[in-house]
Amino acid sequence: MHANNHHDVLLQNNGHHHSSDSNKILNERHEKEKPVVKSKPKELDGYVGFANLPNQVYRKAVKKGFEFTLMVVGEAGLGKSTLINSLFLSDVYHPEQHPGPSKRIKKTVTVESTKVLLKENGVNLTLTVVDTPGFGTAVDNSNCWVPIVEFVENKYEEYLTAESRVHRMAIPDSRVHVCLYFIAPSGHGLKPLDIEFMQRLCDKVNIIPVISKADTLTPEEITHFKKQILNEIAQHKIKIYDFPDPSDEEEDAKTLRQLRSRVPFAVVGANAIIEIDGRKIRGRRYPWGVVEVESLDHCDFIALRNMVIRTHLQDLKDVTNNVHYENYRCRKLAGLGNDGKTKLSNKNPLAQMEEEKREHESKMKKMEAEMEQVFEMKVKEKKQKLKDSEAELTRRHEERKVCA
Amino acid sequence: MHANNHHDVLLQNNGHHHSSDSNKILNERHEKEKPVVKSKPKELDGYVGFANLPNQVYRKAVKKGFEFTLMVVGEAGLGKSTLINSLFLSDVYHPEQHPGPSKRIKKTVTVESTKVLLKENGVNLTLTVVDTPGFGTAVDNSNCWVPIVEFVENKYEEYLTAESRVHRMAIPDSRVHVCLYFIAPSGHGLKPLDIEFMQRLCDKVNIIPVISKADTLTPEEITHFKKQILNEIAQHKIKIYDFPDPSDEEEDAKTLRQLRSRVPFAVVGANAIIEIDGRKIRGRRYPWGVVEVESLDHCDFIALRNMVIRTHLQDLKDVTNNVHYENYRCRKLAGLGNDGKTKLSNKNPLAQMEEEKREHESKMKKMEAEMEQVFEMKVKEKKQKLKDSEAELTRRHEERKVCA
Repeated sequence: MHANNHHDVLLQNNGHHHSSDSNKILNERHEKEKPVVKSKPKELDGYVGFANLPNQVYRKAVKKGFEFTLMVVGEAGLGKSTLINSLFLSDVYHPEQHPGPSKRIKKTVTVESTKVLLKENGVNLTLTVVDTPGFGTAVDNSNCWVPIVEFVENKYEEYLTAESRVHRMAIPDSRVHVCLYFIAPSGHGLKPLDIEFMQRLCDKVNIIPVISKADTLTPEEITHFKKQILNEIAQHKIKIYDFPDPSDEEEDAKTLRQLRSRVPFAVVGANAIIEIDGRKIRGRRYPWGVVEVESLDHCDFIALRNMVIRTHLQDLKDVTNNVHYENYRCRKLAGLGNDGKTKLSNKNPLAQMEEEKREHESKMKKMEAEMEQVFEMKVKEKKQKLKDSEAELTRRHEERKVCA
Repeated sequence: MHANNHHDVLLQNNGHHHSSDSNKILNERHEKEKPVVKSKPKELDGYVGFANLPNQVYRKAVKKGFEFTLMVVGEAGLGKSTLINSLFLSDVYHPEQHPGPSKRIKKTVTVESTKVLLKENGVNLTLTVVDTPGFGTAVDNSNCWVPIVEFVENKYEEYLTAESRVHRMAIPDSRVHVCLYFIAPSGHGLKPLDIEFMQRLCDKVNIIPVISKADTLTPEEITHFKKQILNEIAQHKIKIYDFPDPSDEEEDAKTLRQLRSRVPFAVVGANAIIEIDGRKIRGRRYPWGVVEVESLDHCDFIALRNMVIRTHLQDLKDVTNNVHYENYRCRKLAGLGNDGKTKLSNKNPLAQMEEEKREHESKMKKMEAEMEQVFEMKVKEKKQKLKDSEAELTRRHEERKVCA
């Protein structure tokens, strides 16, 4: 009574974009029958209107608003708060609520969230900045990364729990979408703690390394320092967030590639507005000159801001969701019930649950049967003993009879 | 060692869109501490660039392409294939592959999928049209809807399985996003089969009722017929897809409301191009005049096409995902393992699994203990019997001794 037939045809509006893959065979993994694909595309005879779909998506996205969580990690005094304020052109960290680092030094690592609602041209962004005061400030920083991994994984766990609920609501996304890791401008490569942290975190969160307070390094020193850092990152098999290589179709591909090549970004933060030659700029005035934060000749601040906020924020969210969260979920589900020893399985949890139930039941039946067997055996033993004892009694009785 | 602190501040670029909800308290369900919300929003000191986020989403959507599945249900000969071809301005159903209804009459309902790749202004749409030949053609149509419900639910099941897998891939969405239900232009309200079908399906898929071949009804008859149909739909508590009421902010709110008020859409399909007064139009030429399919004075075809394709296609997908699929998933998970008797629970399946394991284990331990107890009891019994039997033997022995 129930049959599925499939006809596959390829049509396209041949007025636009003859892409090379328009004749490809559609992905039919979930269909039962082989697709029949006509190789000759047909014309759409006018404007149908589904070209408006991306606009529908656009409008829905604006209506819903955006959530983004950015984590900053690095030793105290590297200018993390200043950089955040510079990035979002606002007092995310208010000076009164957030005294300078000297007043905030902590002996242990804590994880602090600050949430702000930002609005720009009608676009709502709920920004959460996660700070990690106390990182690297102890004498022994061996387990510095532990509370940070815990925080990141707790957010995944919250999301997994929400996603796995029977009655699901719209799930707020409080997962950490990017971690800016602040490297001190030492000029001497990475510290062991830098390596340890990035190794521990890089398969759990998008890490973007940042050389902070870069106004203490000359351009030559920066070039050398960056090379050194990238070498060490490769050498220790650390996978930092990889800004996707722009496709040549994108109009700004060249600019994007240039910005991309500046990783690790050497930045200078400043919230003060300085006036030079009548121009108002964000900068730091030294006796030997003014550092213009937003000049790409002076530092990579604009590269960092454009890449993280203007062009790749959604990609950071997508990679968090599709790669890091999926990996967490996979580790969690695959390892479930095996306590450490991971059991890799591609079954869905429902099927797995059913199977485990069946296993339990058959195990129980087997045990019952064994118990029954043991019981019977023991009963037999007892019977035998009874018999033996009876026989013995009888024998003794006979003996006595003979005696008597 | 691990502390979460939360500071909440509201900032906005006060140059744009002072929306009334900008001071609302953020949803803090998933944070442990009470938010501290500053009531006075602050300014963004320049262009940060997250206003570009919807464009990032737009570009990603175009890159990924769209999937849409449309189902048509209704008696044979109501012009379903013609309407589909008219909607997508292309031969989704090619005359050669798809002979007229007289050649296709089937005695049982089958479900047939046709997949086409459409391109328009660089936007890719993988359109699947699901047809249900044989619907309503039998003498007894009592269970006509069964294979259709099965098809719809199978697609949800496939999606749930894919979504629940440990190693998840990008999940293709083959769920049915809308069902155009074709009502015969009888002028006499709904048939019992129409009511039965819509009642059975309306909580599983977005139903949009369509009066087909509406060129057999005068405008007055159509107005009356529509009223009658809507009354019967309300009376039988059928929930058809509710086009969301446009907010007054939307520039085309008035137009949208007018199109929306035309439900159930009375349509005429035509693939032939006719020339009248030098204009080329899609229409049907009768001796008494030409029906212009794309004129809102003649029928609701354009209202249907604009609402389904140009403005609400994404909403149909979202409602399918957020309402119908969630309901299916909920029924499925809540009823799991209870075979019919639904067990409502708001636990997540992992926690549930863990709990059931614990239950099993404690049950098993209890059983073991009971078995042990029974065993001991039986052993005691046997021992007692043994003793008794020994005592009996001894007694008999004594008796004989006395005799002897």
